Amino acid sequence: MSGSVTVVGLGPGNAAMVTPEVSAALARATDILGYTPYVARIAPREGLALHPSDNREELARATHALDLAAAGAHAVIVSSGDPGVFAMASALFEALEAAPRRHGLAIAILPGITAMLAAAAAAGAPLGHDFCAINLSDNLKPFALIEHRLRMAARGDFAMAFYNPRSASRPHQFARVLEILREEGAGERLIMFARAVSTPAQAIRTVTLNQATPDMADMRTVVLVGNSATRQVDGWVYTPRSAGTPA
Amino acid sequence: MSGSVTVVGLGPGNAAMVTPEVSAALARATDILGYTPYVARIAPREGLALHPSDNREELARATHALDLAAAGAHAVIVSSGDPGVFAMASALFEALEAAPRRHGLAIAILPGITAMLAAAAAAGAPLGHDFCAINLSDNLKPFALIEHRLRMAARGDFAMAFYNPRSASRPHQFARVLEILREEGAGERLIMFARAVSTPAQAIRTVTLNQATPDMADMRTVVLVGNSATRQVDGWVYTPRSAGTPA
Repeated sequence: MSGSVTVVGLGPGNAAMVTPEVSAALARATDILGYTPYVARIAPREGLALHPSDNREELARATHALDLAAAGAHAVIVSSGDPGVFAMASALFEALEAAPRRHGLAIAILPGITAMLAAAAAAGAPLGHDFCAINLSDNLKPFALIEHRLRMAARGDFAMAFYNPRSASRPHQFARVLEILREEGAGERLIMFARAVSTPAQAIRTVTLNQATPDMADMRTVVLVGNSATRQVDGWVYTPRSAGTPA
Repeated sequence: MSGSVTVVGLGPGNAAMVTPEVSAALARATDILGYTPYVARIAPREGLALHPSDNREELARATHALDLAAAGAHAVIVSSGDPGVFAMASALFEALEAAPRRHGLAIAILPGITAMLAAAAAAGAPLGHDFCAINLSDNLKPFALIEHRLRMAARGDFAMAFYNPRSASRPHQFARVLEILREEGAGERLIMFARAVSTPAQAIRTVTLNQATPDMADMRTVVLVGNSATRQVDGWVYTPRSAGTPA
């Protein structure tokens, strides 16, 4: 009995953004694992076991999937967006590294539409030139590293995408992020707060960094920052292909 | 007669990575515009006009799509990967900016699976932590800006993805990119050369930056560079979620 672990990206919320490859993997699955709200997106069916779990249980979830696969299951771990962008793919390989007896199992990572690219498409093309993706959560890294990367990204005149900008457990940190970017001279850049992207509740608010306030972001928001050339035309935000000058 | 322009991402090559949203837009189209090899991916049908064009004709192509839409067509511009990542979405808004009489037209950008995320999934999870995406082509920006961004990205210990690493018109430049990263102390980092991702010809080669040579990349290659913590397990390359230390 030869099992497998597949980590799939469900995209940002709209079912029409789930790739056929991912839909096929879900149809073949015997077990679905993931953060509770993502597992809730999967329709129950005969022969399919659903294993929802809490946030911050990524490593235990990945180990569980490896154990199920070793016993012959086709385990599918569901991530929102793309599994390789601040999601479950890295956690799976961490679990695999810690469990040498699971080496050699059939593993596949299936990409999905990640939140920043769905948000960028909804806003126009703000990431149309060189850009950085930064996870603002300090659960797994020191805030000093986040600050350092923000400064390097601003000095490189990169456009930026921020995941996990704000949570109840660290309400003041996003204010500091905005301050750091202003200190780096990015105050006149455009910043987009994209909430519930691709769902009926989608809302995108665009202001300058000088006008931005921390309450514009919440846990369902992905934040995009333009580079120095990013601008608006006819209600859209875009970064020209020739944008940017050396700092 | 109310026309529209839709810019869609066809993903990296595998038809199973095209989202249903994009397939629906293609089915509604009256006109398809794009770089010749991307238009070649669209099945001809009655009532559909195909408008293939050359590379480096992005602005003319975008203007053509706006003109068709103004005359009532449902024009779809096809990009490889995601249209917002070094592709046609920015070119469309540049064309819109230059043509105020086209303002108010119905426009939509539909995301797709971009090459770096398909490559990352095929390799494991090398972009599982903060990362930068950089277009190495100097068609539309000075190489000095590329060099500056490479240095900032390396100093920030970002993982990186490089689009358009090498072309016949600038064979020596990618050698300089590798040198710059070594100068910044990234020689022991893992670098992945992912060619023809998601197609039957897919090939991924992983070495350290010190071992990398320019001929490992060509025009069909997307290049990924890990951060200082990126490592291999059981044949996969991944970046841990807690990766990285301040420079």
